[in-house]
Amino acid sequence: MTTTKLVIIGGVAAGASCAARARRLNEFAQITLIERGPDVSFANCGLPYFIGGEIPERDALAVQTPDSLKAMLNLDVRTHTEAVAVDRAGKRVQLRHLPAGTTEWIAYDKLVLAPGAVPVRPPLPGIDDPRLFTLRSLADMDRIKAAAASAQRVTVIGAGFIGLEMAEQFIRLGKQVTLVELQNQVLPLLDPLMTRLMEDELRRHGVTLILGDSVERFAGGATLTCHLKSGRAVDTDLVVLCIGVRPDTALAREAGLTLGSRGHIRVNGFMQTSDPDIYAAGDAVETEDFVSHELTAVPLGGPANRQGRLAADHIFRPAQTRPYPGALGTAIVRAFDVAAGLTGWSEKRLQAAGRPYRAVLVNDNHHANYFPGAKPLLLKLLWAPDTGQVLGAQVTGLAGVDKRLDVIATAIAGGLTIDDLAQLELAYAPPFGAAKDLVNLAGFTAANVRDGLVTPVTELPDDPAVQILDMRPAALVQTHPLPRNHVINIPFPTLRQQLDKLDRNRPVVTVCALGKTSYFGARILAQHGFNVQSLIGGIRAHYDPRTPAKLPTP
Amino acid sequence: MTTTKLVIIGGVAAGASCAARARRLNEFAQITLIERGPDVSFANCGLPYFIGGEIPERDALAVQTPDSLKAMLNLDVRTHTEAVAVDRAGKRVQLRHLPAGTTEWIAYDKLVLAPGAVPVRPPLPGIDDPRLFTLRSLADMDRIKAAAASAQRVTVIGAGFIGLEMAEQFIRLGKQVTLVELQNQVLPLLDPLMTRLMEDELRRHGVTLILGDSVERFAGGATLTCHLKSGRAVDTDLVVLCIGVRPDTALAREAGLTLGSRGHIRVNGFMQTSDPDIYAAGDAVETEDFVSHELTAVPLGGPANRQGRLAADHIFRPAQTRPYPGALGTAIVRAFDVAAGLTGWSEKRLQAAGRPYRAVLVNDNHHANYFPGAKPLLLKLLWAPDTGQVLGAQVTGLAGVDKRLDVIATAIAGGLTIDDLAQLELAYAPPFGAAKDLVNLAGFTAANVRDGLVTPVTELPDDPAVQILDMRPAALVQTHPLPRNHVINIPFPTLRQQLDKLDRNRPVVTVCALGKTSYFGARILAQHGFNVQSLIGGIRAHYDPRTPAKLPTP
Repeated sequence: MTTTKLVIIGGVAAGASCAARARRLNEFAQITLIERGPDVSFANCGLPYFIGGEIPERDALAVQTPDSLKAMLNLDVRTHTEAVAVDRAGKRVQLRHLPAGTTEWIAYDKLVLAPGAVPVRPPLPGIDDPRLFTLRSLADMDRIKAAAASAQRVTVIGAGFIGLEMAEQFIRLGKQVTLVELQNQVLPLLDPLMTRLMEDELRRHGVTLILGDSVERFAGGATLTCHLKSGRAVDTDLVVLCIGVRPDTALAREAGLTLGSRGHIRVNGFMQTSDPDIYAAGDAVETEDFVSHELTAVPLGGPANRQGRLAADHIFRPAQTRPYPGALGTAIVRAFDVAAGLTGWSEKRLQAAGRPYRAVLVNDNHHANYFPGAKPLLLKLLWAPDTGQVLGAQVTGLAGVDKRLDVIATAIAGGLTIDDLAQLELAYAPPFGAAKDLVNLAGFTAANVRDGLVTPVTELPDDPAVQILDMRPAALVQTHPLPRNHVINIPFPTLRQQLDKLDRNRPVVTVCALGKTSYFGARILAQHGFNVQSLIGGIRAHYDPRTPAKLPTP
Repeated sequence: MTTTKLVIIGGVAAGASCAARARRLNEFAQITLIERGPDVSFANCGLPYFIGGEIPERDALAVQTPDSLKAMLNLDVRTHTEAVAVDRAGKRVQLRHLPAGTTEWIAYDKLVLAPGAVPVRPPLPGIDDPRLFTLRSLADMDRIKAAAASAQRVTVIGAGFIGLEMAEQFIRLGKQVTLVELQNQVLPLLDPLMTRLMEDELRRHGVTLILGDSVERFAGGATLTCHLKSGRAVDTDLVVLCIGVRPDTALAREAGLTLGSRGHIRVNGFMQTSDPDIYAAGDAVETEDFVSHELTAVPLGGPANRQGRLAADHIFRPAQTRPYPGALGTAIVRAFDVAAGLTGWSEKRLQAAGRPYRAVLVNDNHHANYFPGAKPLLLKLLWAPDTGQVLGAQVTGLAGVDKRLDVIATAIAGGLTIDDLAQLELAYAPPFGAAKDLVNLAGFTAANVRDGLVTPVTELPDDPAVQILDMRPAALVQTHPLPRNHVINIPFPTLRQQLDKLDRNRPVVTVCALGKTSYFGARILAQHGFNVQSLIGGIRAHYDPRTPAKLPTP
């Protein structure tokens, strides 16, 4: 077996996975792992939880050390070491040892770039205030944890996945938390309705949510003040910026490797850059999108790990390596008791790209309704109108969110259609699911929409010419009336006897709590010749899901 | 729209689903639902949980009543009514009204048979003792619950899904529970190693497990005694027989419909019997197996519901109906804190059918190890050696079992391979999963086995010529020694320095707790020229998983 000099730049997810797989494949290769920071292979995704104390032991996050990697994988690990230049013709990398600044060149046969990404810090006035933090490394984590000890008011900027985790963990620490988000919703990757439950949950736990606003400048002093575009000012003791990351690709750029439009390293399916002896993996690369085959960047731990592993495979056994299938962007976040996530494409992304799609929203419980502890789930399914192929899904709820996302991610990977979802044979016993799981229900509903059995409407109509038929039980209608004036109340079981209460010459929108009964009613009306649509997802999807008394008025 | 006379025989899962879908598709059809018992559309799978009190309200199980079905679906529901004959030429069914015994004929355009299955009661001496019960209906449930009130010693015969649920629920009621199973394991559909954790859990909670034994006769008297084949006698106050079901197809047989070898009704992909105007669905039918396309019967709630719905689709809109894709046999059971289940084919079934397969066992936690509350999971994956296509999986553990089963059921539905499993992009945040989920790990491991990177062995060798290399940490080796004498202990991190402790001329089997480190060690040894195999799944899969101190000796 020939000895290969493998140099890997970046020692966390993609880099560490690459090194580990490389060692299994070649016991005799010289594998050097270069890391600018002090830590390698740490549990990046766990950082917020140590700050909040939900992960009590810091050691739990420091998965490996240079010594353990030497012992386990016989790696030459160089921490506090920066790669400053690549001599592609000479196949060598220049290293700078920190803090001394001494440099050396080391040779490679194959080079893997896994530099990751760095948090975005916009050039706003006051951005250099020492009370402003970003979170990427164990050192960042330690700094935030130390600063939080004496802070009472904490502001998190950006309500993406990490922003939500930070807000939750600061509440856990008893802080006053303000969460500022540019979009009019948290979790901007999701479609708006799908974040309502999460927003409700954050507010219930005391997070002050400021949506549709952003920081214009920070003003230092005894108190740090975040001045927002709206004119609002938020006094705070500590700010964590969670507004995204940008790929750390200066080295790749200087080496003349092809980069994408947003600065990511371009790779082929085997993670090879424009130089076939240089691979790249993780947050710094652009890969194919699984659904559209367009270029995309998905800075997440799962893809990074698998890409790093795949690069090692291609270096040591190219003939047997299967190309990266593309990224789905599957992601999930928990805050307090609520989870929300997505896989594949969202409606807003499909709209922005001008791709044809159809969508349904379905509500159900996470396991059999009759079994104690059933908790509500809301699922949005998007599919291609021509083929029925599943394009994406979003799920939110109090339990079982991850399972439905994983099932649909797998369905997308298998090219399954809405009809296939309807027929999936999932594990059912009362504590775990239902004879017709929410995923089956999404398939049924989507097929019903495709086949014209029901015409969904996504908002309550404002037009008083449209008859809004509220079929919920009378008690619910009374306690939680619909936020419209032109509503006709007919409880569903009496609908067949009361069809004459409806004007056959005017359109009807059927409404219920969950979107099932409204479908049932729409079927009856349609077969009686009415022009009828059904409010998809029911009231629960469209208005405050756990406190429907607080239905907004138009 | 033409009015159709639809008669459905059987008012629970398949029959009720068929009726509901039929009504949505045709508001004007005459739909008659015939049910021999007093109840329709009840939650069959919840029966054990009401007996044990985990479901406190009986009403929770009585999902619908004849009146509610009339109001919701405009069905003509006839309970206490038995279908006694089908006149296929005249397209009519003879009904007998119980208890009076009066009969009438009713006409059908389409007939759906959803008679379900009945519990097997073997013709053993003493089988008619009134303290012997089976569980299928709400009435059965009520009888068992009443009898259990005064019983102290309860015996459950049959350790399948329902037997385990009953054993758990009787423990919940404070009974002394004996569980008797003919096979040498609980859950006979699963492969033996996959039930160890469940057996351990049952014993921990006080269930007396009698495996590999069966009842020869029951002896009545003041005490009911179960005399077992082994000679053992179990005194008991109450017996529940959970040894399986047989299809209730006398009516279909008398009507001259084609039945399968075990008495199930043969149907095509649209649930049509040999008479195209008569459909059948649910526990009484034989459908195609998804994997092999052979005939199979899967008496479970999920398939029954979807088959009933599909029959209605084909009756009212045949051109748009897609055929039933076949059954995977996905099933799961919970007893106390442990869940176990399967999807697709097991190893024993593949062996019995003489189908080629390969298998791996993988251990990991249900979410990121560093996040509090991580619980162990064991997954067995079976695939086709020629294509890599996934054939089946079994999962057991304390959390997340249902999710992995569902992902793999979906993967089978999509025809995915082990390489596809390796690349699945599942939802990862520390509370929900891992950057490399157990399903990914199963794909990695399977591909490693397929590619010859590791040779798995499924048992510790007895042959002292084989060097058993135990690479666990010294402390674990001391507290939980391997049940073999010819063991060499080299903790993994020191392996590279101690290769000379091993004889290069004799085979080596590497061993660790979970099956990961043993793979790492096997890779090192293989590349150093050793003939090496790795104990797949680690010690945890092969010996008592939660109390490894009790490792059996050979």
